[in-house]
Amino acid sequence: MLDYPALAALAEVIRRGSFEAAALALRVTPSAVSQRIRTLEDRMGTVLIDRGPPVRATAPGLRLAAHLDQVRLLEAGLSMAAPERPVLPLAVNADSLATWVMPALAAVPGLVDLTIDDQDHALDWLRGGLVAAAITSNSRPVPGCDCLRLGAMRYRATASPDFAARHFPDGATAASLAQAPSLCFNAKDALQSRWAQALTGARLALPMHRIPASQAFADAARLGLGWGMNPELMIRDDLDQGGLVDLAPDLPLDVPLYWQFSRLTGPALAPLTEAIKKAARAALLP
Amino acid sequence: MLDYPALAALAEVIRRGSFEAAALALRVTPSAVSQRIRTLEDRMGTVLIDRGPPVRATAPGLRLAAHLDQVRLLEAGLSMAAPERPVLPLAVNADSLATWVMPALAAVPGLVDLTIDDQDHALDWLRGGLVAAAITSNSRPVPGCDCLRLGAMRYRATASPDFAARHFPDGATAASLAQAPSLCFNAKDALQSRWAQALTGARLALPMHRIPASQAFADAARLGLGWGMNPELMIRDDLDQGGLVDLAPDLPLDVPLYWQFSRLTGPALAPLTEAIKKAARAALLP
Repeated sequence: MLDYPALAALAEVIRRGSFEAAALALRVTPSAVSQRIRTLEDRMGTVLIDRGPPVRATAPGLRLAAHLDQVRLLEAGLSMAAPERPVLPLAVNADSLATWVMPALAAVPGLVDLTIDDQDHALDWLRGGLVAAAITSNSRPVPGCDCLRLGAMRYRATASPDFAARHFPDGATAASLAQAPSLCFNAKDALQSRWAQALTGARLALPMHRIPASQAFADAARLGLGWGMNPELMIRDDLDQGGLVDLAPDLPLDVPLYWQFSRLTGPALAPLTEAIKKAARAALLP
Repeated sequence: MLDYPALAALAEVIRRGSFEAAALALRVTPSAVSQRIRTLEDRMGTVLIDRGPPVRATAPGLRLAAHLDQVRLLEAGLSMAAPERPVLPLAVNADSLATWVMPALAAVPGLVDLTIDDQDHALDWLRGGLVAAAITSNSRPVPGCDCLRLGAMRYRATASPDFAARHFPDGATAASLAQAPSLCFNAKDALQSRWAQALTGARLALPMHRIPASQAFADAARLGLGWGMNPELMIRDDLDQGGLVDLAPDLPLDVPLYWQFSRLTGPALAPLTEAIKKAARAALLP
């Protein structure tokens, strides 16, 4: 059996970023925290915390902390004795976090520990047990996980009216798209390229700004830095009021989203799963 | 002299996340891109791209790509011949990105490549040349960089009225803060703890949700998940309209922000520096 008090010390150091803060949370001295973690490292035969600065978890340290989260979640599901407040580690894609998902998270009785899925890692995190569940555009099955389709998020190719008039006087074409600055969330964000290919039939190399935050990405479109695929949920008012224009109203891009969750902790997650499904039904396309 | 066409191939692969997309942007075949990078790796004696999946830069690869950005920026400063559109790599702290900084970036003639500073890495990035400039709360001098004070961002301890009534019926005290869920941006976000200590005089271990996105963090406060330090710029309307309450109107927390930029590329950055200073004067406290 693992040494759970030592795991608790490890998890607090990781979450709070220092031995002092962890000690405070656990009501022990920093040297006791340090001692517990050293003993745990000896037993596991590997370094769990990179002492830094900054203090940071190693990969095995992260896995152990996530394991503790799952054990606590299972304990909470027992409904016996007074449970500690469980911490629920979730991965959520940035645009869902910025639009429809927060109210559902308000239904969680414990504390949420969110990680933003950049569209690529959520499944690795699930597989490694670093998160208990994920809202992701990735439907690939993960061993030990169930996958529910939540609906589709509709994106629209949008730009400010000035930007559209300047760069797309004759509409968006292969030639104008090859010149006009686009917005890109990060290197994994292929939505702009996919849409441009759907529109023109050509694979285009788009000039691009990189704006890795959902709200700032929409702001960049409003301010005329570039055109980009924005979630309809986020920019409906801008379209209605003319702050943004839709470059091709008959060519939205629909991205299916999935709720992938560990079968082991699934029963403990059931109330959250219901809240997520309900919020998705209200916000997403079927 | 470095092989700049090969560096350009490297940079495109990193920014676009695949050899195919880079080839498209450079109008060569994917195998030509691959060949250029292999030759460059042989000459540098190190792996520059982790072929993945996902395709990703190694640390030396990132440094070389950033070097290319700087060379292009200097070229743009020459104002001779028709310059390529320079890419400006910047680090910005999340709350500035969510509030006051985007309009200033709209003044940049080239393309911006933003990285979100989680308060800890911006100086390393500057030192390593991975970004040309940073908006950061860190004033530590970086060799080869200039540091301008931009002003202070005012944070207010805020919660929904229901949350405040339920968890802080007698106001926020050491006892109630030790029980009430707080919001935390990430492990480096000490604002809540600092404020709680300023209020109570005690170092407290706050129970916390982790919400690593500025807008979602404010939404979490509005929805009653927890209390947290929100930028006044972001939640002024909520306070005016009663959607959020200030837990201690006479105890805001002011965080000074700095514009740190490479002295080498400083002249090329001058128009942006002016735009940033002007926007900061309008939005931040002196």
